[in-house]
Amino acid sequence: MNTRNIIAGALAFGITSLALGQVIGKPEDQIRWRQSAYHTMAWSMGRIKTNVEGSYNKDQVIEAANLIQAIANSKMGALFQTNTGTGKGWKETRVKPEFFKPESRDELGKVAGGFSKEANEMAKVAATGNAAAVKAQFGKLGEACKACHDKFRKED
Amino acid sequence: MNTRNIIAGALAFGITSLALGQVIGKPEDQIRWRQSAYHTMAWSMGRIKTNVEGSYNKDQVIEAANLIQAIANSKMGALFQTNTGTGKGWKETRVKPEFFKPESRDELGKVAGGFSKEANEMAKVAATGNAAAVKAQFGKLGEACKACHDKFRKED
Repeated sequence: MNTRNIIAGALAFGITSLALGQVIGKPEDQIRWRQSAYHTMAWSMGRIKTNVEGSYNKDQVIEAANLIQAIANSKMGALFQTNTGTGKGWKETRVKPEFFKPESRDELGKVAGGFSKEANEMAKVAATGNAAAVKAQFGKLGEACKACHDKFRKED
Repeated sequence: MNTRNIIAGALAFGITSLALGQVIGKPEDQIRWRQSAYHTMAWSMGRIKTNVEGSYNKDQVIEAANLIQAIANSKMGALFQTNTGTGKGWKETRVKPEFFKPESRDELGKVAGGFSKEANEMAKVAATGNAAAVKAQFGKLGEACKACHDKFRKED
């Protein structure tokens, strides 16, 4: 991924030094909303997984992929204000302190950009109804999720 | 709203006598996922509200409206299987017993259809960037949310 893509991805996710995302809510609201958005994506990933591992239903995959795409493009990075590094939404946040460090910005831009790219591609591929292509793209999207979890999310 | 729209809306939301939505997860997963989806919508509604009551940013409203639309079209009605009338996701479910009664099906189709219609319209209006039209449609969407809450959600 080149620098331009990294920046575009970081902007799409709302993570930039300029904090372009729309900030609303108290810290506990932001944590609860981001946990909600991640779990909505987990549901949607589960739906796609069931389709690529079992009988394939084009509409179900489109519904799930479109929802993941809408979250990826929502600039939910704005829900990670610096006062949300600890605290409880539905449960204690699992974000690592590294997330908020200035020296992590490039890495964060890279993983956020990678996620946005793969989520947008997932929606495109879902629309084709090509089950094999969806399966391949689902793998790439899962890797993009994991890249961020590995770096910036504490294990349970 | 005519019968055809009610049925189309109910189908979009995934609530039908044929259970067309994609069912995955245990009851507690379904409850947690639907609570997550509703809170993701609450965040998005809050974002639109802030825009229509303050300075207007077209992109922010589009991001939020597209996310609400994707949830409205996800057939999340499948997360209301009959064994999820009680139980805990992030918290105890607030769904009323009426939701699952056969005699509520028409009313449920009507409120679900109304919600889908207004959510799709919200995304269309958001794309125009017309702040006054967005404000009017935001009011209609809020009413559509409330129509379901009044009938099928317990108060806190």
